[in-house]
Amino acid sequence: MKLRVVISTAFILAFFVSFAQENNHQRTASSEKGLLKITVMYPFSEGKTFDMTYYETKHMPMVADIIGANLVKYTIEKGLASGIPNQPLSYMAIGTFYVRNLQEYQSAIAPHRETIRTDITKYTNVAPVILISEVVR
Amino acid sequence: MKLRVVISTAFILAFFVSFAQENNHQRTASSEKGLLKITVMYPFSEGKTFDMTYYETKHMPMVADIIGANLVKYTIEKGLASGIPNQPLSYMAIGTFYVRNLQEYQSAIAPHRETIRTDITKYTNVAPVILISEVVR
Repeated sequence: MKLRVVISTAFILAFFVSFAQENNHQRTASSEKGLLKITVMYPFSEGKTFDMTYYETKHMPMVADIIGANLVKYTIEKGLASGIPNQPLSYMAIGTFYVRNLQEYQSAIAPHRETIRTDITKYTNVAPVILISEVVR
Repeated sequence: MKLRVVISTAFILAFFVSFAQENNHQRTASSEKGLLKITVMYPFSEGKTFDMTYYETKHMPMVADIIGANLVKYTIEKGLASGIPNQPLSYMAIGTFYVRNLQEYQSAIAPHRETIRTDITKYTNVAPVILISEVVR
């Protein structure tokens, strides 16, 4: 009898913990709606190079550290092709940062701008295009 | 005594459920790594317009339906500013589709290309730039 009480109590509690976490998970994973996004795009053209390994293992983690707790997540993608036939590849690579607060992001980056700029020359010979956007969905 | 056993068992179980789900959460939410991404970018320039409401409520859901089960998720963002001082805004809006299989995406889109093109004229007067990329992180 004691065992049955223990087991049923444990199951009931586990169910509620599971339910609460599932809800939390869906809220976090569903979308980045409302966040600010900084997109750093590296245009492709003849003679331009991009070292994805350096970018992924050194540059992006460094910038993520500089942004700090305001950073929700960052992403990296590798350009493969233009989606329109007979058009050249637009970007070799794109990196993005999702942040809660744009002003905080700018204050965090400002004192490190020179360090970041110098580091960019270690993995590419192209100047990135940067876009600040709001996540609608 | 019985109560103490019940409570401690429940707590131990709850801890393990919580731990297992936390791990699972991090795995699912961490990234879309390995997926293919189609990014549709609408360049900004003088006189160009973009109807975000139509895009969000009509166009994107329509294309999402056409892509079907191969679509993992889609996103919409609104361009706010260039991230580089004194540079014009690069894109007014960006829509993306994350898919598992690129060939399947292309086969799904092909018979509807004309419908999609006609629909684009309902929310913008600019031709989008399209990039196909691989999610690295």
